Amino acid sequence: MNIVQIGIGPLGRRVVQYITKREGVTIAGAVDVDPELIGKDLGDVCEIGPLGVPISDNLATAIEGQDVSVAVITSLSSVVAVENQIAAAAEAGLNIVSTCEELSFSLNINPDVSQRIDEVCKANKVACVGTGVNPGFLMDYLPSVLTSICQQVEKVEIYRVQDASPRRIPFQQKIGAGLNDEQFQAKVKTGTLRHVGLPESADMIATSLGWKFDKIEDTLEPVIAEERITTGYIPIEPGIARGVKQVFTGFINGVEKMSLHFLAAVGEPESYDKIIISGNPSFESVIPGGINGDVATSAITVNAIRAITRAQPGLRTMLDLPVPGWFADI
Amino acid sequence: MNIVQIGIGPLGRRVVQYITKREGVTIAGAVDVDPELIGKDLGDVCEIGPLGVPISDNLATAIEGQDVSVAVITSLSSVVAVENQIAAAAEAGLNIVSTCEELSFSLNINPDVSQRIDEVCKANKVACVGTGVNPGFLMDYLPSVLTSICQQVEKVEIYRVQDASPRRIPFQQKIGAGLNDEQFQAKVKTGTLRHVGLPESADMIATSLGWKFDKIEDTLEPVIAEERITTGYIPIEPGIARGVKQVFTGFINGVEKMSLHFLAAVGEPESYDKIIISGNPSFESVIPGGINGDVATSAITVNAIRAITRAQPGLRTMLDLPVPGWFADI
Repeated sequence: MNIVQIGIGPLGRRVVQYITKREGVTIAGAVDVDPELIGKDLGDVCEIGPLGVPISDNLATAIEGQDVSVAVITSLSSVVAVENQIAAAAEAGLNIVSTCEELSFSLNINPDVSQRIDEVCKANKVACVGTGVNPGFLMDYLPSVLTSICQQVEKVEIYRVQDASPRRIPFQQKIGAGLNDEQFQAKVKTGTLRHVGLPESADMIATSLGWKFDKIEDTLEPVIAEERITTGYIPIEPGIARGVKQVFTGFINGVEKMSLHFLAAVGEPESYDKIIISGNPSFESVIPGGINGDVATSAITVNAIRAITRAQPGLRTMLDLPVPGWFADI
Repeated sequence: MNIVQIGIGPLGRRVVQYITKREGVTIAGAVDVDPELIGKDLGDVCEIGPLGVPISDNLATAIEGQDVSVAVITSLSSVVAVENQIAAAAEAGLNIVSTCEELSFSLNINPDVSQRIDEVCKANKVACVGTGVNPGFLMDYLPSVLTSICQQVEKVEIYRVQDASPRRIPFQQKIGAGLNDEQFQAKVKTGTLRHVGLPESADMIATSLGWKFDKIEDTLEPVIAEERITTGYIPIEPGIARGVKQVFTGFINGVEKMSLHFLAAVGEPESYDKIIISGNPSFESVIPGGINGDVATSAITVNAIRAITRAQPGLRTMLDLPVPGWFADI
C-alpha cells in the first residue's frame, strides 16, 4: 500500500522512519511547505538515507502517476488550518490519517469545518480520521473501549502523569519547566504551553457514553517546585514551575461525571496512565510508567493506515474505526 | 430499539435484567427450548416482575408483528451448535449479538460454519458478532487495541488470574476446586472444566497482528493446594485441586510470541487482568482486582447491541466493530 506523507516536521519524520521499517506500506510521495525542504530527498531529510522520494510543495506533483491509497497528514493542530490539505487529499481519492489534534473529535467543537470535511470525504468515497496517542488513544479511545464491559457508568476519571526529567529539552521547555510565574503566564497567553485536545478527548468519551455536560471546567496551571529539583535540563528552585497541569471536568446536573488530568512535570515521582471507571463494575486500568508520546503517536498513525482503508467513507473517529492494532503486514 | 432474547439460562436472564435497566433498548420477544419455560412471562422467569413478554419456543412467534432489530443469543458455546439459531435470526432480518464463545473468532478454527454464517448474514444485510468479557474482550480485543500504539510488537503475554474464593459455589465447582486428581481428570475428560475460547482469543490477536503460529501448546492442569485452604465453599486439603490453570502458547520459528494464561482458583492471593506487550514501546496494562466475568459478559453483550447495528453486514468480530462502549441511550 502506497501512502503520501504531508508534513515533514519532527513528527512527520518519525512517521516516515517508522513506515520504512514496516512491511506492506511504502511512501510514494512527500509534501511540505518549507522552501528549505522542497526538492530534497525525503529519506535524507529524515536521516535514514535516500528513499528516491523528492519532497514536493504540492500534492498533485507528489502523487503523480502513482497508485496512492492514503495521505498521512502531520502538519497542523488546528482543524480549520488543516481543512484545505484534507480536502485536497480527499479530492485526489486518498483516505486520510492525520495527527491534527482537533480532528480527533471535532464534530461538536468545530461543527462547520467537520461537516465540510465529512462531505468532501463522502463525495470522494474516502475516509478520514484524526488520531495520535493523546488525543486519539490514552485519554479518549481507550477509556471508551473500557466502558464496553460496564452495565452502568457513573463517572470516568483519567490521569496522564509524566515525569519529564528523562524527556528531551524541548519537551521540558514546552511544559514550562524552569519558568517563574510571570514567564509561565506569558507562555500560557501565547497558547504554546497548552496540551491541545483535552476538550476533544472529553467530547469523544461523552459522545460515546451519550452524556451531555451542562457545565465544564478547563484549567491550566503550573506545577510549582516545593524543593530544589535537579533531575531536569536545568536546576529548578522552589517556587518555580517544574511543569504544567491541565484538568478538564464535565458536570451533569451538578454532579462531576468526568475528569481528565494531564500533568507533565520535571521531578514528578511517578509516570503512569490511569483510567478509573466508577459504575458496575467499578475498576481501574493502569499502565505503570506511562506511554512515551513520541513513539506512540507516530506508531498509531502508521497503524491507522490499515484501519482507515477499511472504514466507511466520511469523517470518522477512533470510535467507529476497526481496531487500528499493530500489524506485521497489511 | 427492540431486541429478541434467545436463550433464557442464567446468562440470558442477567442480560434481560440489564436490558430492562437501560434506556433505548426494549425486549420485544424471548425464545428458549426448555418446555418448563415456554409460555411463562420473561420478566417472571428473570425475577424482575412481569414484562408482558411470553417465552416462545420459536423465533417467528416471538417477533411476530414487532419491529425487532437485534437478536441476542446466549444459548450455546459451540458455533456449530448455534449456527441454526443464527441463520434463523439472520433470515428474519435481525442483527445478531451472541455470547457463543467459539463465535468470538471462528473464521480460522471453524471455517465452514463461519463462512455459511457470513453468507446468510450478507444475504440478509445483517451483521453478527460473538462477544463477552472472555473471550471477546479481556484476552483478545483489549490486547489488540493496546497494540495500536506500538511501532513494533515482539511478544504478547496475557494473564487473567482470579481468586475464586468470593465467587458463587457453582463457579468454584466448575473450576474443579475440592477435587482430587482422579476427580479432576475425570472432569477434564467430560470437557466441563475447560474455559472455552482460549484458542479463539489467541487467534483473534494473531490475526490482528498478522502472525501465523507454526507451533502451539494448549495445556490445562489443576492448581494444587499446598496448604489447607478455608476461604472457599468447602475446606481444601493440601494435594487437592483448588482451581484450574489453562495456558495457550503460540510460537513462530521456535520463538514464543504469545501466551494466554487463564487461572481461576480458590485461595489465589490476588485477582488481576494483565497484558504485557514487548516491543516498541514495551509496556504493561493492569486491572488490579480483575473483572467480574458475570457482570461484564452480560454488560458487553448489551453494549454490543448498539455497535452491531452500525457494523457492515456479515460475520464480524470485535476487531471490526465500532467501539461497543457503554451508552446512556442508543
